[in-house]
Amino acid sequence: MTDLTEIASPVLGTLDDAGRATLFTDARTANSFAPTPVSDAELSAIWDLAKWAPTAGNSQPLRILYVRTDEGRERLLTHMNEGNRAKTASAPAVAVLAVDTRFHEHIPALLPFRPEMKDAFDADAELRTRTGTFNATLQAGYFILAVRAHGLAAGPMAGFDAAGIDADFFPDGRWHSILVVNIGHPGTNPWFGRLPRLGHEDAVRWE
Amino acid sequence: MTDLTEIASPVLGTLDDAGRATLFTDARTANSFAPTPVSDAELSAIWDLAKWAPTAGNSQPLRILYVRTDEGRERLLTHMNEGNRAKTASAPAVAVLAVDTRFHEHIPALLPFRPEMKDAFDADAELRTRTGTFNATLQAGYFILAVRAHGLAAGPMAGFDAAGIDADFFPDGRWHSILVVNIGHPGTNPWFGRLPRLGHEDAVRWE
Repeated sequence: MTDLTEIASPVLGTLDDAGRATLFTDARTANSFAPTPVSDAELSAIWDLAKWAPTAGNSQPLRILYVRTDEGRERLLTHMNEGNRAKTASAPAVAVLAVDTRFHEHIPALLPFRPEMKDAFDADAELRTRTGTFNATLQAGYFILAVRAHGLAAGPMAGFDAAGIDADFFPDGRWHSILVVNIGHPGTNPWFGRLPRLGHEDAVRWE
Repeated sequence: MTDLTEIASPVLGTLDDAGRATLFTDARTANSFAPTPVSDAELSAIWDLAKWAPTAGNSQPLRILYVRTDEGRERLLTHMNEGNRAKTASAPAVAVLAVDTRFHEHIPALLPFRPEMKDAFDADAELRTRTGTFNATLQAGYFILAVRAHGLAAGPMAGFDAAGIDADFFPDGRWHSILVVNIGHPGTNPWFGRLPRLGHEDAVRWE
C-alpha cells in the first residue's frame, strides 16, 4: 500500500545523441585556439552549470580563477611547464581550478541541517584535506564537461608549478591550485587523431 | 597566410536545455530507488560514454566493479557506513569506482608515441599514486554525469570502509576503491529540497 502523500517515482530524461557528441563522443581536448574571444558572461555561465553536480555533504570545495588579461596570462605562463606554454598563450581564457582549504566555513550555509560538520572538519585537518581535494577534483570533471556544454573547447593541463601559481595568485594561502584549463574556440589543427580507450576487459568487472 | 593543408577551426555544438536539465540543473542525487531493474547493457553503456572524457596522458586509471547480485550486494553492505546501507540495499545496481594502482602498464597501448612514460611511473611510486588518484577522481565525475545521461539516477557515497571493500572485492591489491555509486530509477520520495550552491562571490575570482 502506498501512502498517498508520497511523491511518485520521477521519470528521468536521457541525453540525446547530439548532447553525447558535444560532451563525450565527439568532444576533444584542444591544443590550439582561434582568436575568437570568450566573454565573461560565457565564463560565468560555465560555473553556473557545473555548480549543480553533486559533492559530499554539498561541500563544494572547488574554486575558479578566470585569467583573461594579457598581464595575468603572462604571469600564469611563467608557472606552466614549457610544453604547455604555447597552448595557454593561445587560449583567450584560462581557468585555474583550485581547492578551498577552508571550504568547511561555508557548511552552515550549504548544509543547514548539519552545521556541526563544520566543527568536525575544523578539528581534523587530514579529513578536511582529503575531502576537499577529492570533491574539488570531482567538480573539476564536471567543470570540463560544463565548458564543452557551452560550445567551447577545454584544454586541461596538469603540467604546472602549483606552488608557484599559489604564491603568485593566491597569496593568502587559502586556495591551492589543482588543474589549469585552457578555454576557447578551437584553432587550426587543434588536435591529433583520437587515442584509444581501455576496453571492458581491462576497466570493468562484474559481481 | 594560412597553409591550405591546415584543418579549419571546427565549430562546436552546445548542450541544449533538455541536456542541461538531465545532467546538471534538474538532476538530483537519489536516496531511494524503484525496483525497476537496470540491465547489464545499460551499465556497460555508462562506461562506454564516460570513457571518452579526458585524462592526463590518456592514462584512464579509473576502474569499475558493477555489483548486481544479491550475494554481492550483501557483502558490499557490510562495508558501507550505517547511514548508507538502506540506500545501497534499495539500488538495483551499485558501481564501486576504483583506481588501478598499476594503470601505467597500459600506457604503451594508450599513449603509443610516448611509451617511456610507463617507465617514468614505474620508477616513481609517489607520482604514480598522485596521477592515478587525481585522474580516476576526474573520471568519477564524468561517470556520475554519464549515469544521468542514460536516464538513471546516481547516488554517490563516500561513507564506506575502503580497506574492507578492497580486501573483499579486490584481493590482489591492484584496485583501490574511491567512491561507491548507487544506480537506478528513483523511488518514492527520492530526494529532499535542493540545497544551495555557492555564489560567484565565494567561488569565482577574475584576473
